[in-house]
Amino acid sequence: MPDSPPLPPESGMPLVRPHDGVLAGGAHLFAVRAYFEDTDLSGVVYHANYLRWFERARSDLLRVIGVDQRAAHAAGEGAFAVSELTIRYRAPARLDDDVVIETRVDDLGAASCRLAQRALRDGVVLAEAQVRVGFVAPDGRPRRLPAPWRAAFASVPSVAS
Amino acid sequence: MPDSPPLPPESGMPLVRPHDGVLAGGAHLFAVRAYFEDTDLSGVVYHANYLRWFERARSDLLRVIGVDQRAAHAAGEGAFAVSELTIRYRAPARLDDDVVIETRVDDLGAASCRLAQRALRDGVVLAEAQVRVGFVAPDGRPRRLPAPWRAAFASVPSVAS
Amino acid sequence: MPDSPPLPPESGMPLVRPHDGVLAGGAHLFAVRAYFEDTDLSGVVYHANYLRWFERARSDLLRVIGVDQRAAHAAGEGAFAVSELTIRYRAPARLDDDVVIETRVDDLGAASCRLAQRALRDGVVLAEAQVRVGFVAPDGRPRRLPAPWRAAFASVPSVAS
Amino acid sequence: MPDSPPLPPESGMPLVRPHDGVLAGGAHLFAVRAYFEDTDLSGVVYHANYLRWFERARSDLLRVIGVDQRAAHAAGEGAFAVSELTIRYRAPARLDDDVVIETRVDDLGAASCRLAQRALRDGVVLAEAQVRVGFVAPDGRPRRLPAPWRAAFASVPSVAS
Repeated sequence: MPDSPPLPPESGMPLVRPHDGVLAGGAHLFAVRAYFEDTDLSGVVYHANYLRWFERARSDLLRVIGVDQRAAHAAGEGAFAVSELTIRYRAPARLDDDVVIETRVDDLGAASCRLAQRALRDGVVLAEAQVRVGFVAPDGRPRRLPAPWRAAFASVPSVAS
Repeated sequence: MPDSPPLPPESGMPLVRPHDGVLAGGAHLFAVRAYFEDTDLSGVVYHANYLRWFERARSDLLRVIGVDQRAAHAAGEGAFAVSELTIRYRAPARLDDDVVIETRVDDLGAASCRLAQRALRDGVVLAEAQVRVGFVAPDGRPRRLPAPWRAAFASVPSVAS
Repeated sequence: MPDSPPLPPESGMPLVRPHDGVLAGGAHLFAVRAYFEDTDLSGVVYHANYLRWFERARSDLLRVIGVDQRAAHAAGEGAFAVSELTIRYRAPARLDDDVVIETRVDDLGAASCRLAQRALRDGVVLAEAQVRVGFVAPDGRPRRLPAPWRAAFASVPSVAS
Repeated sequence: MPDSPPLPPESGMPLVRPHDGVLAGGAHLFAVRAYFEDTDLSGVVYHANYLRWFERARSDLLRVIGVDQRAAHAAGEGAFAVSELTIRYRAPARLDDDVVIETRVDDLGAASCRLAQRALRDGVVLAEAQVRVGFVAPDGRPRRLPAPWRAAFASVPSVAS
């Protein structure tokens, strides 16, 4: 059974949307699939591309809890930026693999947070990372998280606590 | 209402999967979302990244009709390769945009096919492309499509006719 | 003989710089090398990555003739954006290949230009493209090229004529 | 003065080549420039793209000391794969920045090595990383470095010691 049945077409085009992530068990889960663009000639996913997958998952986590990054950027409030990242590669991902990115918020500070992220395929850990992300003003200086964003994080105890 | 409700967790982890594309009305529809990795400092999606989106959609189309690219590559049978592509950029995509990639098979030959692909946001065409894709042996030479693949295409009249 | 001998170190670090492109024979020539990031599991350079190479070459062409894209963007004047592109793939590039991107300006209009670009390895054409690039204001609307930029193009008859 | 003057044209095309890295002072130095493809809408280089720059530098280091990765891959001997990486982002890189990637080999084992890499702009550290790279067989299992490769590393005391 497909997990994402299209809704009946109304304007002649069925509704297709990116698969949104979900909050469950204190973590955010987000699905990706490995395409040709992700692989290199060694036949497996290029190491830097896990960082792209992890960033997609963090962006989706923000979207799920109601944080609008695009509006914040457009309003000149700032954006999140990775300040430190450690990643360990455990097993390679291959073309067509269905991979779940699991994200947990380990610590939420005034201007930054620490996250633990893992890439899993059928329960097997492919890669795991610790990521520190800071909120920065358009001039690049650290900045306190907007109050509504802190509230958004706080409203999700399973994630932020 | 979320379009992809997770199934009840069995092993403690809800089922999350990439959003699969669908065949509808003679086209394949596949959803993507624009992330930071897709944008550049001009604030919109970098032009080359539409080609990545289009390739994901073509890979998904193959998967949907039962063609296993990974097995074909592993068996040394070959792979699809773009031989010619024309793309027109009509309107920019921006961070967080939900974009649908629509793919139609215009012509299916012995060793290649022509596709028409479009990136749409709320019915607005962002980019449209004509793509010629050939099947090539591991040594890079053109090769006839494997018979089961031709049958797979032929079994989907809405796409191949 | 290395083509780019480092200057004698002064502060303990020799001067190393990116290889700049050159204007010669009515064309701009710019060198790239294929790295793991450029390849995919088929063993050759991923088709979309030629567009990145071509864009690097166009940026270098602007730099060579004295056009400062970064300053224009920072000043809110606008940026170049590809509006249409046709590319034909002739032969694959492989890991470690030294590739030269050749760029010719076919036509220079008030708000856009047409370029012909080729990727060559030892004189063999790997890919060739026709690219239309427009100058766009920050709001995305077409805009006339800044006068100094037109002058910069005009001062290079071998390219612009 | 351009650092890379083209050699006199022989066949009508001047010789342009990628800027090769150099060994100096116990380190490998390799130059990159930031292009549109490297940036995101926050206006600076996307965090994952530093990993691409670092990988280019490692590939160039191998090339400089005479290790042929492409031949090793083609011969089925294996390839290097990153097993662990820590990166700290100190200051952002921007469009058109000239950046030098400095690589030092901290430790060379039987099947892996540890490297320290930094991205520098005019002597300012933009990012610094510790990277563990292993040699893996085509089946993904760790493998001892080919003897000639060990010899190549050993012949460069300034790097390997």
